[in-house]
Amino acid sequence: MNQPVRLALLGCGTVGAEVVRLLHEQSADLAARIGAPLEIAGIAVRRLGRDRGDLPIDPALFTTDALGLIKRDDVDVVVEVVGGIEPARGWLVEALRAGKSVVTANKALLAEDGGTLHDAAAEGGADLYYEASVAGAIPLLRPLRESLHGDRITRVTGIVNGTTNFILSAMHATGAGFVEALEEATELGYAEADPTADVEGFDAAAKAAILASLAFHTRVGADDVHREGITEVTAADVASAKAMGCTIKLLCIAARGADGQGRETVSVRVHPAMIPLSHPLAGVGDAFNAVFVEADAAGQLMFYGRGAGGSPTASAVLGDVVAVARNRLAGVRAASESAYADLPVRPMGEALTRYHISLDVADRPGVLEAVAGVFARHDVSIATVRQGPAAGGAGGAGEAILVIVTHVAPDAALAATVGELRGLDIVRSVASVLRVEGGS
Amino acid sequence: MNQPVRLALLGCGTVGAEVVRLLHEQSADLAARIGAPLEIAGIAVRRLGRDRGDLPIDPALFTTDALGLIKRDDVDVVVEVVGGIEPARGWLVEALRAGKSVVTANKALLAEDGGTLHDAAAEGGADLYYEASVAGAIPLLRPLRESLHGDRITRVTGIVNGTTNFILSAMHATGAGFVEALEEATELGYAEADPTADVEGFDAAAKAAILASLAFHTRVGADDVHREGITEVTAADVASAKAMGCTIKLLCIAARGADGQGRETVSVRVHPAMIPLSHPLAGVGDAFNAVFVEADAAGQLMFYGRGAGGSPTASAVLGDVVAVARNRLAGVRAASESAYADLPVRPMGEALTRYHISLDVADRPGVLEAVAGVFARHDVSIATVRQGPAAGGAGGAGEAILVIVTHVAPDAALAATVGELRGLDIVRSVASVLRVEGGS
Repeated sequence: MNQPVRLALLGCGTVGAEVVRLLHEQSADLAARIGAPLEIAGIAVRRLGRDRGDLPIDPALFTTDALGLIKRDDVDVVVEVVGGIEPARGWLVEALRAGKSVVTANKALLAEDGGTLHDAAAEGGADLYYEASVAGAIPLLRPLRESLHGDRITRVTGIVNGTTNFILSAMHATGAGFVEALEEATELGYAEADPTADVEGFDAAAKAAILASLAFHTRVGADDVHREGITEVTAADVASAKAMGCTIKLLCIAARGADGQGRETVSVRVHPAMIPLSHPLAGVGDAFNAVFVEADAAGQLMFYGRGAGGSPTASAVLGDVVAVARNRLAGVRAASESAYADLPVRPMGEALTRYHISLDVADRPGVLEAVAGVFARHDVSIATVRQGPAAGGAGGAGEAILVIVTHVAPDAALAATVGELRGLDIVRSVASVLRVEGGS
Repeated sequence: MNQPVRLALLGCGTVGAEVVRLLHEQSADLAARIGAPLEIAGIAVRRLGRDRGDLPIDPALFTTDALGLIKRDDVDVVVEVVGGIEPARGWLVEALRAGKSVVTANKALLAEDGGTLHDAAAEGGADLYYEASVAGAIPLLRPLRESLHGDRITRVTGIVNGTTNFILSAMHATGAGFVEALEEATELGYAEADPTADVEGFDAAAKAAILASLAFHTRVGADDVHREGITEVTAADVASAKAMGCTIKLLCIAARGADGQGRETVSVRVHPAMIPLSHPLAGVGDAFNAVFVEADAAGQLMFYGRGAGGSPTASAVLGDVVAVARNRLAGVRAASESAYADLPVRPMGEALTRYHISLDVADRPGVLEAVAGVFARHDVSIATVRQGPAAGGAGGAGEAILVIVTHVAPDAALAATVGELRGLDIVRSVASVLRVEGGS
C-alpha cells in the first residue's frame, strides 16, 4: 500500500461533516479503490468551540488558520466546502499554484471567476475538480468533460435548483400559489430562511454558467447568464400550462446558435418555462434535479438525481477526492479546462424561444385581426390561438380571453410584441407571458 | 501540436462507418480537445470489395489482415466494433499486451470473458475502455467507474435493451400482444430478423454482467446472470399491470445483499417485471435506455438516453478514443479494473423480489383460505389480494379470479409457492406470474 494521501478540509458545515463521516465509514473501501489510504491532515473552521456532535475525528485536527493548513507540506489535496467568493478564492488559488489538487463544491466562485481557478491550476500543474458544484450527487460534469468530448453538444436544458423545483412541483400538484408553496418548502426545509438566491434564479444561473462553459468549451460567467426567477409565476400560469398539457419548470438553458453573420455563438439563460408533460424533464418532481443534454451523435441524454443535501453533495465531493488522489499516485493530472472554442455569448434578445401569451381582450369583432397584426409587424409567427370567454376574475360581459402560442422567434421580437400588445386599446391586460421549451 | 495519435479500426459496419464519419467531420475539434490530431492507420474488414458508400476515407486503408494491422508500430489505439467472442478476443489481447489502448463496444466479449481483457490490459499497462458496450451513448460506465467511487452502490436497475423496451412500450400503449408488437418493431427496424438475443434477454444479461462488475468491484460474468426474456409476456399481463398502476419493463437488476450467514453477496438478474408508473424508469419509452442507480450517499440517480444505433454508439466510442488518446499523450493510464471486493454471486433462488400472481380459481367458499395457506407454508407474506369474477376468456360460471401481490421474499420461496398453487384442485390455472420491482 502507498503512503497516505492527505486532505485539508476547508469548512465543516453540513457537507463537510458528511465528508468526514463518509471518509471514516468507508476508509477501507476508499483505500482499496485508490491504492492508498486517505487521511485528514486538518479541518479549517471559523470557530473552534462549536459543538460538532459525534463527528468521528480527533478535535485537535480543527484549526482556524485555513491558509496555514493549505501551505503545510503534508497536505496533498484541498477540499473546499465553505462557499462564497472570498476567502475561498484566495485559498484555492494558493493551493493550486502550489500544485495541490483542489476539490470544491463552490458554484458561486466557479461561476464568478472560474477562469482564475483554472489558470492557477494550469500554473501549478494541479487538478481542479468540482462535480458537487452542479446538481449535487449526479455525475454530470465529468461526463460532459470527458465522456461526451468525442461529440458536439448542441443544447443543455436543466432543472438545477431543488428549492424552485419543489415549489413549482407543489404548485402543479395542488394548484397553490407561489407564496403558499414557498411557505410549504420553508416548513419542510427545502427553502432557506432567505430564499432569494434560489427563487430569483441566482443559484441556477451560477450552475448554468458552469454547465455552458463545459459543454461549449467556452468561458461563460454568471454575468453572461440571462436570469429570471419564479416569484412571478402564478397559480393561473400553472393552470394555463396544465390546460396545454404542460408544466412549468425553472430551466437553465445553454444552447449553440448563430448570430446574424452566421458565426457560432452560445446563449445561456435561466427562466421559468412551460414544457410538455411528455418531456423527460416534466417528470422530475420534488427537489430532484435533472439535466437534459442534446448532442449531434449521442442524441438525447438525461441525468437525474438529488441536487442538494449533505449526503449527495458529500458523495460527489468524495468521488472527486478519489479521482484526484488516484491522479496524484499515478503522478498525472486530469484533462484540464478546455476553453478552445471561445464562442461569443449572445444577448438574451437574440435567444430563440417561443412565447405563450394570455390576453384579456374586449369581446368584439376585429380583435383577433388587430392582435395578429402586432405579431406580424414583429415578424413573429403564431402557432396556435385559442379564444374563449373570460374565465372569471375581474372580467365581466364584453371580455374574452385570447391564448396565443408562437413559433420560435428571437426573444427581443417576442418581448417587443408583448410590449405593443400592452398598449392596444382592445387589450385590457396581458394576463401572463411564459416561454415554452422542450417542444418541436 | 503533438504527433498524431493513430487508430486501427477493426470493423466497418454501421458503427464503424459512423466512427469514420465523425472522425472526419470533427477532426479539428477533436484535435483541439486532445492536443493532437487523430489519424486512421488502417481499417480491418472481412471483405475488401464491399461498397461502403461515400465514406470519407482513402480506400487503401482497408485491409483484411486485422492482426497485422494491430501489430504495426505506428498504431497507438485499437478500436474494435466487430463484436462476438472470437476473433475479437485474440485481437484485443494481442493489442493490450503490446501496450496499445483498446476501445471496444463488445458487450458479449466483456460479459463472457472480461477478466482476460482486464488482465491483458494490466499486463501491457494499457487502457481498456468500453463505454459503448452498455446503453450506447449514455455516459454510464465512466460515472460508475469514476464519479461514484467515493460512494457505495447498493442497487442498479436498468432498461438496457432498446428492442424489448420498444415492444413492451407498444404493448402498454396499444394493448397489443407480444407477437404483434414484435412485428411492428421488426418493420420499423427496432428488431433484427432473428430477435432471439434481444427478446430472450441475452443482450440485457451481458450488459447486466458488465454493470454489476463495475458497480460492485467484483467480476461478474454472463453465466452468473439469471435470465428470462419477454416472449411470455401477454397482453393480459400488461393489462393487469396497468390495472395496478404499473407497466412492464425488461429490467436488469444488480443488487447487494447478504446470504444466510450475513456475508455480503450480489445478485444479478434480467427478467420482465412490473414497476409503478410513478417510477422514473416507467417513463422510459420507445427504444430508449435508462439505468437507475441507488447509492448510500448519492441516493437515487438515473441515466437516460439512446442505447443503440450507429451514431449514439459511435459517440460513445469516440468519447473513449479521446480519453485514451489524452492518456497516451500524458503518458498515463486510467484507473484500471477494480475487482477488490470479489463478492460471491448469489443464486436466483436467494434473490429478494415480490410476485404479482393471477389465479383462475373455483368460485366457492374456502378458496382464499386454501390459497393463503400455501403462501404461509412457504413463509411468503401477502401484501394485497383482489378477488373478482373471471374476466371472460375460458372462464364461465363458478370461476373467479384472484390477484395476489406478495411482500418481498426469496425467489425460490415465491417459485415454490406458485408451483404448489398449480397443484391445487381449486386453482384452474395460474394465469400470470410477474415479479414486481421499484416499489417499497
